[in-house]
Amino acid sequence: MTSIADRYEAVRRMTESLAEPLSPEDQTVQSMPDVSPTKWHRAHVTWFFEAFILAQHEAGFRVHDETYWLLFNSYYEAMGPRYPRPDRGLVTRPGAAEVGAYRAAVDERMERLLRSPDLDRRADVTSLVELGLNHEQQHQELLLMDIAHVLSRNPQRPSAYPETEHGGTYGGVRQDWLDVDGGIVEIGADGADFAFDNEMPTHDVLLRPFRIARRLVTNAEWLDFMEDGGYDRAELWLSDGWARVRAEGWRAPLYWIDDDGGGWQEHTLNGTRPVRLEDPVVHVSHYEADAFASWAGARLPTEFEWETAARLHGRAPDADPRRITSHHPLPARERPDETMLQAYDTCWQWTSSAYLPYPGFRVADGAVGEYNGKFMSGQMVLRGGACVTPMGHARATYRNFFPPHSRWMFGGVRLAQDAGDAARG
Amino acid sequence: MTSIADRYEAVRRMTESLAEPLSPEDQTVQSMPDVSPTKWHRAHVTWFFEAFILAQHEAGFRVHDETYWLLFNSYYEAMGPRYPRPDRGLVTRPGAAEVGAYRAAVDERMERLLRSPDLDRRADVTSLVELGLNHEQQHQELLLMDIAHVLSRNPQRPSAYPETEHGGTYGGVRQDWLDVDGGIVEIGADGADFAFDNEMPTHDVLLRPFRIARRLVTNAEWLDFMEDGGYDRAELWLSDGWARVRAEGWRAPLYWIDDDGGGWQEHTLNGTRPVRLEDPVVHVSHYEADAFASWAGARLPTEFEWETAARLHGRAPDADPRRITSHHPLPARERPDETMLQAYDTCWQWTSSAYLPYPGFRVADGAVGEYNGKFMSGQMVLRGGACVTPMGHARATYRNFFPPHSRWMFGGVRLAQDAGDAARG
Amino acid sequence: MTSIADRYEAVRRMTESLAEPLSPEDQTVQSMPDVSPTKWHRAHVTWFFEAFILAQHEAGFRVHDETYWLLFNSYYEAMGPRYPRPDRGLVTRPGAAEVGAYRAAVDERMERLLRSPDLDRRADVTSLVELGLNHEQQHQELLLMDIAHVLSRNPQRPSAYPETEHGGTYGGVRQDWLDVDGGIVEIGADGADFAFDNEMPTHDVLLRPFRIARRLVTNAEWLDFMEDGGYDRAELWLSDGWARVRAEGWRAPLYWIDDDGGGWQEHTLNGTRPVRLEDPVVHVSHYEADAFASWAGARLPTEFEWETAARLHGRAPDADPRRITSHHPLPARERPDETMLQAYDTCWQWTSSAYLPYPGFRVADGAVGEYNGKFMSGQMVLRGGACVTPMGHARATYRNFFPPHSRWMFGGVRLAQDAGDAARG
Amino acid sequence: MTSIADRYEAVRRMTESLAEPLSPEDQTVQSMPDVSPTKWHRAHVTWFFEAFILAQHEAGFRVHDETYWLLFNSYYEAMGPRYPRPDRGLVTRPGAAEVGAYRAAVDERMERLLRSPDLDRRADVTSLVELGLNHEQQHQELLLMDIAHVLSRNPQRPSAYPETEHGGTYGGVRQDWLDVDGGIVEIGADGADFAFDNEMPTHDVLLRPFRIARRLVTNAEWLDFMEDGGYDRAELWLSDGWARVRAEGWRAPLYWIDDDGGGWQEHTLNGTRPVRLEDPVVHVSHYEADAFASWAGARLPTEFEWETAARLHGRAPDADPRRITSHHPLPARERPDETMLQAYDTCWQWTSSAYLPYPGFRVADGAVGEYNGKFMSGQMVLRGGACVTPMGHARATYRNFFPPHSRWMFGGVRLAQDAGDAARG
Repeated sequence: MTSIADRYEAVRRMTESLAEPLSPEDQTVQSMPDVSPTKWHRAHVTWFFEAFILAQHEAGFRVHDETYWLLFNSYYEAMGPRYPRPDRGLVTRPGAAEVGAYRAAVDERMERLLRSPDLDRRADVTSLVELGLNHEQQHQELLLMDIAHVLSRNPQRPSAYPETEHGGTYGGVRQDWLDVDGGIVEIGADGADFAFDNEMPTHDVLLRPFRIARRLVTNAEWLDFMEDGGYDRAELWLSDGWARVRAEGWRAPLYWIDDDGGGWQEHTLNGTRPVRLEDPVVHVSHYEADAFASWAGARLPTEFEWETAARLHGRAPDADPRRITSHHPLPARERPDETMLQAYDTCWQWTSSAYLPYPGFRVADGAVGEYNGKFMSGQMVLRGGACVTPMGHARATYRNFFPPHSRWMFGGVRLAQDAGDAARG
Repeated sequence: MTSIADRYEAVRRMTESLAEPLSPEDQTVQSMPDVSPTKWHRAHVTWFFEAFILAQHEAGFRVHDETYWLLFNSYYEAMGPRYPRPDRGLVTRPGAAEVGAYRAAVDERMERLLRSPDLDRRADVTSLVELGLNHEQQHQELLLMDIAHVLSRNPQRPSAYPETEHGGTYGGVRQDWLDVDGGIVEIGADGADFAFDNEMPTHDVLLRPFRIARRLVTNAEWLDFMEDGGYDRAELWLSDGWARVRAEGWRAPLYWIDDDGGGWQEHTLNGTRPVRLEDPVVHVSHYEADAFASWAGARLPTEFEWETAARLHGRAPDADPRRITSHHPLPARERPDETMLQAYDTCWQWTSSAYLPYPGFRVADGAVGEYNGKFMSGQMVLRGGACVTPMGHARATYRNFFPPHSRWMFGGVRLAQDAGDAARG
Repeated sequence: MTSIADRYEAVRRMTESLAEPLSPEDQTVQSMPDVSPTKWHRAHVTWFFEAFILAQHEAGFRVHDETYWLLFNSYYEAMGPRYPRPDRGLVTRPGAAEVGAYRAAVDERMERLLRSPDLDRRADVTSLVELGLNHEQQHQELLLMDIAHVLSRNPQRPSAYPETEHGGTYGGVRQDWLDVDGGIVEIGADGADFAFDNEMPTHDVLLRPFRIARRLVTNAEWLDFMEDGGYDRAELWLSDGWARVRAEGWRAPLYWIDDDGGGWQEHTLNGTRPVRLEDPVVHVSHYEADAFASWAGARLPTEFEWETAARLHGRAPDADPRRITSHHPLPARERPDETMLQAYDTCWQWTSSAYLPYPGFRVADGAVGEYNGKFMSGQMVLRGGACVTPMGHARATYRNFFPPHSRWMFGGVRLAQDAGDAARG
Repeated sequence: MTSIADRYEAVRRMTESLAEPLSPEDQTVQSMPDVSPTKWHRAHVTWFFEAFILAQHEAGFRVHDETYWLLFNSYYEAMGPRYPRPDRGLVTRPGAAEVGAYRAAVDERMERLLRSPDLDRRADVTSLVELGLNHEQQHQELLLMDIAHVLSRNPQRPSAYPETEHGGTYGGVRQDWLDVDGGIVEIGADGADFAFDNEMPTHDVLLRPFRIARRLVTNAEWLDFMEDGGYDRAELWLSDGWARVRAEGWRAPLYWIDDDGGGWQEHTLNGTRPVRLEDPVVHVSHYEADAFASWAGARLPTEFEWETAARLHGRAPDADPRRITSHHPLPARERPDETMLQAYDTCWQWTSSAYLPYPGFRVADGAVGEYNGKFMSGQMVLRGGACVTPMGHARATYRNFFPPHSRWMFGGVRLAQDAGDAARG
């Protein structure tokens, strides 16, 4: 098993490798309040180690720069005042290079701590480091979805990263249902491996028999929905969703562009290119996912159904923290067995579950207790992992969550049905 | 049992008796987008009978006034264009008297229909009338909470209704817990009596053992929370709730006023008066209810816990559709038995459950199918009934729902705990 | 000459006669922040007499109702706190009838004061009453333009007043120019007759020779502008004006409606009716007036040019304070002489002059000093009088003023040119 | 006299020398919609030469980059679509270095054109180049005031430029009045030297005798105003100004900060430092200037008074286009003669004149005609030049203009009075 120090180094390097192709200008901009600048992400995750680990556990600790505690605290009320979130893109200094220097300085201090001989007697430190690394991996995902949004606003339509080759055959997988029996199931993480507080405690849930789609909804299927008037038929939509469709003029997924009537293009981290029919649809909101499901005679799974199905039929994801699957979701690839495809490496999958605490959920003491619990209002759960999820960071119990109108994360659609229902098409 | 025609007459009269003390000016104003003018409510419920019953089932049907179909359709997309909701207060004509004439004309036509000899063979009509009457009773509640908001904006601090005398002793009830066992329980309405679509179908839910408060939280307890810094301590609040506290300067329940530092006054439908310590706290949001529960070392019940406890310990409410309990929530009154007090006649009670469809929920065909399902997003469930609920309109399975920041409905707080937890105070 | 007491009675009655056809509901609504409810106007002008005259000059003065001082103070900072202007439409009480009682009570007290034997020794009182009456006449104009806006939001398209017959021949007047020499002219009111502070002091202005249109621009001419792409051609517009055109989708004057492509209709105080080609265009903003002038190869006159031309060529308006000309602007009627037609009884006429103090302007002492001076920023001057101007209230020196985007007042267009320029068409 | 080619080179170098100390991150951010990023300014002025000169006059012209025409067109409707102004800060590419390459490429092409042997026969080209250079000098001013705003949002309080030494004695100049006779004066530029279209044509204006302050209002005087309740006394303010004071919480000039009650600091381009009493007050709005003048028993001069006084008493400014006076306004320095001090090199000075066309003003043909005329609405004139004005760019006829609430330009206050009035203090 990898040492925590090696794992620290691998995760930290991964962040820098994602930022490396981005210019100082790219790293500075905040294209909407939900987005944070790349250099902010790089600094914030570093501040997390400085504030929650070094400040408590380093002998002779001194603050690297006091203004950084103001600038790079995200939302921890207990850690003092914070620079307003919507203004993160107004801060030009420290620049990308100075942030790099901050990272290097903290890394040097952290590695000294992590390689100290008495570390194995300090479970409090290692569990905090583990939290910090998982936190940084979440920000790797955020960094990628945020820079995709930043670059999407540029009429030059830049590409952030070259498209990588993926060996093997993707696409051509027929949709199918996987059946799951009802009954009492155990949900949640038991704490044996790392999990966030919101995945705990384990608890029993009563399920009714259901079935769940083998692969995600594709762009071809989404085009059918569009051509059948999906964005024009109020009866398919939740009321709040319909209000969004009208107010914001939604006609297609977030990054689809139809210049000059020449056919749908899609802005991706690999540049702008024609919509690929076999790709899974991505960058759709909960409202759109729900409307699509209604149109398709199906529904979204609950998060408990998803977790149960994934435990039964999902394939354990790979675990190399220096890699992500791709910069954009790939089509499904066929497997011989009864597998729930694209569970962990393609798109997060909207569920019909509101993001609420599990029975018996307890907020941790101290500032770290602000990690998840206080966001349990007004959001919907997405399950699984995305193409931009660092390998090894995805698991069956992981709960992602966003407001139902959010589209800029890599959110896609896996359908479900009550056992016995017949789906359209 | 009362005939449907008699019941129709009783419900319709009740609406008019609520509007009668209000001037034409009072009935015209919309004090915020969520509020509708009194005369709009009176007309809209009438349009419901015209559009969903007369238009389908009256021989030789003719529209009363075509512009009313534009003005008084609330949200039925399938019924054609609608006047914008936030502009309902801009419409001066038809005035209150013309709306009265509209009501009388529809009543005459409805009563002819309801007293026709072949009505007992027309279950489709009677079930739609039952829906229309329950709909009108909901609007009686809305009319009262809306006019309370309208009058609260008036510096003259008017009273809408005189305070009525309530015989018997109210107040002085010690808080206590009622214990409920865990296990699989049946939730929802079985359709034997009238219920809205969102209460169906019945389904099993797995509960853990819990306990629930015997009475609602009082103003005295809320003042303790305020004096202990409840509105200043971020750690007690959901993140969205804390943002509201800051953005809107919440310091107390919605209608509490502290002029000139002379002590808290409360605006009510009976006028403005000093806050009464034994009254239940009312006009608090889900965010405030949740923060209070955190402060009290407790939590809000789920809607399933509430329904189960109410079935075990709640007292069946009275059933006279010509009355409401009071214009403002009354304190609890002692009972000798193990009763869950104030379940149906005081305040709706915030739960920790998001408003979502029950497993197997199906939207009804046609425009009536827009009644509930499309609102199942972004709202929290409240259970029970309020002082402004028409008698007989409350039941154990009833699901009320509002966004978590809403305060103008009669929303109060009943605490719960996991079995075994010790509550503060 | 009429006594001040008779004049008081005539002006006060005129206000009530304008309000009389309006229902309590009509009188309550505020359809945009710029608009005030009819009953607010009726009460505010009454408060003006109570606060500025009775409170200073009545023996044993007692306030009629303290909340009225909060509710009906428009903008006098020196007179204490005020209810927020955009919320005037939220106040249902006092209702229209109570406002009537307030008017009657103040009238009784005022008439006692005005008929007291020593009044002729009290020039301070009569000059304040004169100000109060002119102020009330301004609010008669506002009342009419405000209720026109309120009713325009109603899909029933109501008429506030029946159309009155106007004897004689209107329309068919050919446009022509009146030439005016340059030189030093005296501008402003000399104080011999009543004038507002903003019309003073008299001062010299140097004019260049110019010419000014004999009549106002007609709807027929405006349709030419529209058909020639007037609302689509950025080059005709001031930058702020063009931004408004785009943001608010202006395609025609404010109250023009083109339902179903059946041709332009116009909402007026006399109901909705087809646009009449010979009527002067009305309810256009300064931006539109300026763009039209550019399109026509002309310009708007300065306020000094207008006043000079009106003194030379304008006909003295009639002077019966119990009448207005009409509820909607009438076409020009031919006259044999060299007259500047429609100067005082049709539409106010946009000038190219910003609303600024005259050289030597002094703000009066006390609260009355807030009457005009503090608004001398961000507004444009309109000159002349409108169809809704009470007779006798118009004069050559009168300065009306509104922000350049305002459309709901009766604003129209009279063109001008430098001497020697050739106008298009 | 310098050749146009040499002048081109000098002005272009000046821009780059201002940008050089700013990082790529600094050059990217737009801190409010009025502000443009540094790299945008650098590119936009370059596009001006490409679009208005090379595109018309270069043989074999080819566009440098088509997206630049979208990105770097400021407001020329006639030149095609434009990227939305408030989103200029979202564009990360081209970066600062690529903008540098664009500048170099256009410079090379421009210099070839400017050094071509037949240039002296092409007055159309040289006059457009002259316009382009004056345009670029305006953007040098904008670049500096914009970056000051960007850096002011940074809690690190950075300095953009080191403070330069200014030899000689500054400060200690007693305020005094300069008297000017009334009469007919000629206003405006006669076209002998370069002037913008809005300074023309010359025309006669009738002035009354007045007096004008010898130097600008100082910070010490502004502190007196503040301590005398200047920001709390409604009676001193224009109504729109008072609304701003309340809505935005104005308590002091824009960049004054009072952390921790330790005394007023001022953010400047040279860093944050204690307010210097003898410095002229700067970064105040028209509303504040007007309120200060009222408080001081004076008024602002009209733009015609300012120009007349400056012609009589102002000292001709220096003319080296490679320099500006300083990054922050300097105190007045004494002179033996009757001079109007600080006219051209300190702050622009608010006048009481709205920005309107001069009599006989004509918009130029083509896109260049959009330069000034279309902005003649809703703005006030400032006269003179500022510390950030490139030397030689200031002149007596120059008209600067901003909305009355604007504070981020270097706007200060010079008082005036009618002849005969007695000023306070």
